[in-house]
Amino acid sequence: MKFEFAKSYEILERTPAVLNHLLTGLHDDWIMKNEGPETFSPYDVIGHLIHGEKTDWRDRTTRILEFGVSKSFEPFDRFAQFEASKGKPLSQLLDEFEKLRAENIQWLRSLNISEHDLDKKGLHPVLGEVTLRQLLSTWVIHDLTHIAQITRVMAKQYKEEIGPWIEFFRIMSF
Amino acid sequence: MKFEFAKSYEILERTPAVLNHLLTGLHDDWIMKNEGPETFSPYDVIGHLIHGEKTDWRDRTTRILEFGVSKSFEPFDRFAQFEASKGKPLSQLLDEFEKLRAENIQWLRSLNISEHDLDKKGLHPVLGEVTLRQLLSTWVIHDLTHIAQITRVMAKQYKEEIGPWIEFFRIMSF
Repeated sequence: MKFEFAKSYEILERTPAVLNHLLTGLHDDWIMKNEGPETFSPYDVIGHLIHGEKTDWRDRTTRILEFGVSKSFEPFDRFAQFEASKGKPLSQLLDEFEKLRAENIQWLRSLNISEHDLDKKGLHPVLGEVTLRQLLSTWVIHDLTHIAQITRVMAKQYKEEIGPWIEFFRIMSF
Repeated sequence: MKFEFAKSYEILERTPAVLNHLLTGLHDDWIMKNEGPETFSPYDVIGHLIHGEKTDWRDRTTRILEFGVSKSFEPFDRFAQFEASKGKPLSQLLDEFEKLRAENIQWLRSLNISEHDLDKKGLHPVLGEVTLRQLLSTWVIHDLTHIAQITRVMAKQYKEEIGPWIEFFRIMSF
């Protein structure tokens, strides 16, 4: 499947509502536990998504369009949310993410990015040259894979409780 | 985390709304593609969940409570939905799942299953002896892992489009 703006907005626009329905009102045992050291809980993921809206996708899009490969992206801090989210209830984080995402989509639409623009390149600090098309596709994939991660982490909380059924759940060992 | 009814209902009750928000109105390219032979598309997963509501969880719960290990569960047909869903739009399947799930939760609550009942055993045709606690935990996990599967399958549709970022998405090779 090729990148298309229409199909990409379909995902980017719905993610806040999906996360709201998935996580609002859950017991802390579902949202605060992770998969082990240096892994994210569902709560951590929402902070991570907020940090992405604030510092990653928009900034990198701008940098490609304005500087091309002459100015590398800022490195992304994958652990910034551990400090930034501290003390905030999940509902506040979900609201913050929803607001930021709506603003960023409005901003992205306002750019009227052309097919030609999508081929423009930027410089990733680790991956090297990347195109705007690849960046925007990654934004979409990043939403989906983090929903997959959240539900996997939640599922693992009952890992001991399902007994012999563990055999049928390859994902529990991932 | 130990099995608890309250925490389990939190998941079982929200799954239909999560799936509705995740899938309603998406382009077919997001919902009809799978991960290769004998794998499920998001569309297939909803049919699979419907088949589970109709033939699996409720029937097996009843069998444990009424027959214990003296009468094995019926085998579950993992591919029944390929026939059963044929020609139905996704929105119809989502509505059907929502209705069946609501009925099954109401039914499950009405049983007033005790802690003692949770230790009762049944006979799985492949796994052998399993407890009611394990069956009900698996029902919950099954929802979560299928949401993880759906979002993973969707993410993979942009696999070719993210270029070098593939390196950061372990899940895309799963």
